[in-house]
Amino acid sequence: MSKIKKIGVLTSGGDAPGMNAAIRAVVRAAIYNKLEVVGIMQGYEGLINGEIKKMKSHDVSNIIQRGGTILCSARSEEFRTVEGRKKAHEQMIANKIDALVVIGGDGTFSGARVFTQEYDIPVVGIPGTIDNDLFGTDYTIGYDTAINTVTEAVDKIRDTASAHNRLFFIEVMGRDAGFIALRSGIATGAEAILIPERETHTQELQTYLEKEYKEHKTSGIVIVAEGDKSGGAYTIAQEIGKDHPEYDIRVSILGHMQRGGSPSAFDRVTASTLGVAAVDALLDDQKSIMVGLVHGEVSHVSFNKAIKNKKKVKDSLLILNDILSI
Amino acid sequence: MSKIKKIGVLTSGGDAPGMNAAIRAVVRAAIYNKLEVVGIMQGYEGLINGEIKKMKSHDVSNIIQRGGTILCSARSEEFRTVEGRKKAHEQMIANKIDALVVIGGDGTFSGARVFTQEYDIPVVGIPGTIDNDLFGTDYTIGYDTAINTVTEAVDKIRDTASAHNRLFFIEVMGRDAGFIALRSGIATGAEAILIPERETHTQELQTYLEKEYKEHKTSGIVIVAEGDKSGGAYTIAQEIGKDHPEYDIRVSILGHMQRGGSPSAFDRVTASTLGVAAVDALLDDQKSIMVGLVHGEVSHVSFNKAIKNKKKVKDSLLILNDILSI
Amino acid sequence: MSKIKKIGVLTSGGDAPGMNAAIRAVVRAAIYNKLEVVGIMQGYEGLINGEIKKMKSHDVSNIIQRGGTILCSARSEEFRTVEGRKKAHEQMIANKIDALVVIGGDGTFSGARVFTQEYDIPVVGIPGTIDNDLFGTDYTIGYDTAINTVTEAVDKIRDTASAHNRLFFIEVMGRDAGFIALRSGIATGAEAILIPERETHTQELQTYLEKEYKEHKTSGIVIVAEGDKSGGAYTIAQEIGKDHPEYDIRVSILGHMQRGGSPSAFDRVTASTLGVAAVDALLDDQKSIMVGLVHGEVSHVSFNKAIKNKKKVKDSLLILNDILSI
Amino acid sequence: MSKIKKIGVLTSGGDAPGMNAAIRAVVRAAIYNKLEVVGIMQGYEGLINGEIKKMKSHDVSNIIQRGGTILCSARSEEFRTVEGRKKAHEQMIANKIDALVVIGGDGTFSGARVFTQEYDIPVVGIPGTIDNDLFGTDYTIGYDTAINTVTEAVDKIRDTASAHNRLFFIEVMGRDAGFIALRSGIATGAEAILIPERETHTQELQTYLEKEYKEHKTSGIVIVAEGDKSGGAYTIAQEIGKDHPEYDIRVSILGHMQRGGSPSAFDRVTASTLGVAAVDALLDDQKSIMVGLVHGEVSHVSFNKAIKNKKKVKDSLLILNDILSI
Repeated sequence: MSKIKKIGVLTSGGDAPGMNAAIRAVVRAAIYNKLEVVGIMQGYEGLINGEIKKMKSHDVSNIIQRGGTILCSARSEEFRTVEGRKKAHEQMIANKIDALVVIGGDGTFSGARVFTQEYDIPVVGIPGTIDNDLFGTDYTIGYDTAINTVTEAVDKIRDTASAHNRLFFIEVMGRDAGFIALRSGIATGAEAILIPERETHTQELQTYLEKEYKEHKTSGIVIVAEGDKSGGAYTIAQEIGKDHPEYDIRVSILGHMQRGGSPSAFDRVTASTLGVAAVDALLDDQKSIMVGLVHGEVSHVSFNKAIKNKKKVKDSLLILNDILSI
Repeated sequence: MSKIKKIGVLTSGGDAPGMNAAIRAVVRAAIYNKLEVVGIMQGYEGLINGEIKKMKSHDVSNIIQRGGTILCSARSEEFRTVEGRKKAHEQMIANKIDALVVIGGDGTFSGARVFTQEYDIPVVGIPGTIDNDLFGTDYTIGYDTAINTVTEAVDKIRDTASAHNRLFFIEVMGRDAGFIALRSGIATGAEAILIPERETHTQELQTYLEKEYKEHKTSGIVIVAEGDKSGGAYTIAQEIGKDHPEYDIRVSILGHMQRGGSPSAFDRVTASTLGVAAVDALLDDQKSIMVGLVHGEVSHVSFNKAIKNKKKVKDSLLILNDILSI
Repeated sequence: MSKIKKIGVLTSGGDAPGMNAAIRAVVRAAIYNKLEVVGIMQGYEGLINGEIKKMKSHDVSNIIQRGGTILCSARSEEFRTVEGRKKAHEQMIANKIDALVVIGGDGTFSGARVFTQEYDIPVVGIPGTIDNDLFGTDYTIGYDTAINTVTEAVDKIRDTASAHNRLFFIEVMGRDAGFIALRSGIATGAEAILIPERETHTQELQTYLEKEYKEHKTSGIVIVAEGDKSGGAYTIAQEIGKDHPEYDIRVSILGHMQRGGSPSAFDRVTASTLGVAAVDALLDDQKSIMVGLVHGEVSHVSFNKAIKNKKKVKDSLLILNDILSI
Repeated sequence: MSKIKKIGVLTSGGDAPGMNAAIRAVVRAAIYNKLEVVGIMQGYEGLINGEIKKMKSHDVSNIIQRGGTILCSARSEEFRTVEGRKKAHEQMIANKIDALVVIGGDGTFSGARVFTQEYDIPVVGIPGTIDNDLFGTDYTIGYDTAINTVTEAVDKIRDTASAHNRLFFIEVMGRDAGFIALRSGIATGAEAILIPERETHTQELQTYLEKEYKEHKTSGIVIVAEGDKSGGAYTIAQEIGKDHPEYDIRVSILGHMQRGGSPSAFDRVTASTLGVAAVDALLDDQKSIMVGLVHGEVSHVSFNKAIKNKKKVKDSLLILNDILSI
């Protein structure tokens, strides 16, 4: 039987819709399993500073639908230092916390991995980031919501683009990965999608635009991943516009609204599943792993692998868009 | 090389959000592959009556985001008869249509199966129904949107339930399956979920409500699948209310709004993927099959199996809700 | 100078989106004017029972966008009795509350009026109800949100109605008034709108449907106010369907989702304006009045008039729909 | 009796949500009054080029809920010339169009005014712009929708701002007017609102932020109108950030999504009302006027006045926000 009596849960790094649903699931799964559970504010920073509070079932009532995170999030410079982590460990002892569930991205898991090596403390991670750039899970919490947010915004832009026969370059988030751009591009019927995983030949885009946009289309949408090597929506728009002053070009950077909002049903179910799975993993004597969803089933991957490996975008989706944008 | 030169596409049975995205994908994938493509109005009824029109790329512009189906849908009694299908076949010959893509549910595929047996015509099906009750695919087109629609509606009801400390019984669609109820129940943090796949012991629900709702909760949501054996939300609400006049009970039947609305990003990507996959399957000499998504990859299942087998709800989700509703 | 040092705020009766925005405005306007302010839970019930808590600026942070009411609401039988109001008055003295702001509908204001007569206590009302049925204000808080909720739901139903060429009877809230039905009917392009303020001749509707729906329309939407004398959507649908078995008729009762949801921008601005206006009115020595918006400006109307007079629906809107539904 | 037998309708300038609802109302009101009606594509450009098509009732079915404009819009350089307007007039004669309804903003009305002076043709304008910057109407079509779009986007940003205790500068549209910024700022509970109509003292903002944001607030939102004299969100953010490197500042430019989307119920009702009113005005022998809504009633204002006068923002709303942001 597991010796864990009390667990702590925190959110760290960039926030993502569905983090609250995950917190709720961790808290209730802990209580269901007769564990005590505390919430740690501000990520690792709050662990170091002892911003810790007992969580009961009622404390997570009516939060499943809320964006953001009730535990707040922060990036902690101090936790990167040996002393920082020492303080964190002292707080865990002082508060009798036996194990941690950390919700975040690869930065969060890197910190967790070092911590668990130094102090032999069980830590289980839950993938929470809109970017979907984590190896070991098909979906990260927040990704589906972000895609829907982008899709709704681009639908709106399509209205005005069509009314004026305009060509829009729309930049979406995703750090150095193209997951958001790719799926939202397909979902919005984008004429082209520029992602870091595929080299952007401006010349090809030019040819495509001349062939399709000028001849057939009443509006054009090019989705640009923020990490695309072309340098972002403004740069590529300028380059295209230079050669084609006859295009009526506009640029839109969707920005931080992609990080917020009430989570989609999909993200809530994923977050609920993974929150329970994280507590299960701790009770199952796991440590230094991330729980994920692979082919619809809960899976475990070591922090080490989750951090080191790069998740690939689906080539089939890239091909799909080439077909659909004719 | 395939001898198919011209394909027809139709939507049949209950409509579902994302059908337009699927039509768009079929049309463009056909054109991409140098095929001619026609749209058939009103499902099989329109095939019998020759309501057929040529589709070009532009005809499916700007429809990916629209609910409903631009080809309209209908249930055809005539297609169930030998003569009806004879007329349909004659129309196909007259219009030089070599193969069909049919978008719909099991009724649609049953008709297609008989038709393909009688006339040796290649027909490929795309699963389009909000109910998700088709064997051979993890997701049907429209399911994710319906769950989001339910989730948003229940979020609204939760607001007023909390303000008044009320207990709501909310009935959702799904025919004789509990897929919509189960996932939307988890997504909305429902206190209980009643689905046909699990026997509903009113007594158990009573006990749960007395233990949880009365003691801890500031509001209560019970999601009831329309096919649940308890007889629907009104019946079960009455039964519970009879024994507990002190509960402030309300009932809401969400109804047909679950069938409409702009499709979610997830459904649009699924519909786009399956539309292209259906044309690929035809070019690959497939017939009498449904294309689906299994573990994120395109799969084929015979109409026969898709119709005969019953898709199971995930037990893990049932257990999940028991944990999360404490 | 006003002798008011401390005010209490409560929400009572059916909740409405925007009540939280109004609470926020009352609390902050009070603090801005150097008053103390307390929140009273559960309406008059909480006043009687002393469920009272001090409110600071931070307590109303981040609630402007939330549906429901953080103070909860209830109907209080006890407050209708002399003893109930006596207890309420004693609580006010014990808690040193000099005046009240009550947010609700005519039931709320009726109670307030008696209370202020018996104890000479300044009470100012804010109109909070989705029904818009209060004399003395052009808009009540929650009305615009409810109309948008209905409009979005009917848009979804229109999708599926068009796909199947169906005739829908959709019942909306509004108690014995037709405000919600009328504006949402126009906003959704309804083929007909049935409201209590206009007699419903089933025969006329029949004629209209035969002339328009059968001949020209690909779908039909009839919006029915819950208070309509025809007896509601089910009754009227049955009556029409009896004579016209060839119509493909469906009924949808939108229900309690109309009471919840994040308030629209319009409702938030109205609630913010009226919340500040209510505190201003108290400081201006007003009592027994409701603040409202008339022609975009803050106005005052006595509780007496607000309760007794009946607000009329705009005839111009009735005529408008006759023109637009051709 | 009016000698008008046939009218034309066009949309011009920047598009706005609700333009389709206005087109629908114009077309149906014309038919209701036994007039013929044609749609003119691409604004004045299409009038010059004869892009004109007959409109029947069915042509405007199911468009009330769509963003953009089915008639498309454009800015026409040629219509600014004498020859351009001559061609337009010739087209009107050739097509037997007796009068025009033009939907747009002040540029649209300026063109209309000159045209009606030169050729004595009745032209009635409908105010369609998200900016609400037209004198003679309380609301322009698209304004309410744009505010709701901004409000939903800022709600999302608030989620992530709160999770990270960040200060956001969010730039919204409105050309040289602050209407969108002001109402959406109040609706989102913005900590500060910068609009062209009020001088922005960076120093004051600094003081406010130091007093409020640093001491009390868990997040900060500053709404900046694009026309604000401070130079836009980036400039002001940089200025504030220079002095306060300790603030965690982010900038978001909401961009063109503000111009699209399904119109709000309010905009649909306004558009429907004004569409009918425009046809009524023509039948009433009006010319060279804009129809508007003042205090909820239809009003007429000459193009001359609508163009020359500047609509003022409500001072009461400015004061309101100072109170509510404490």
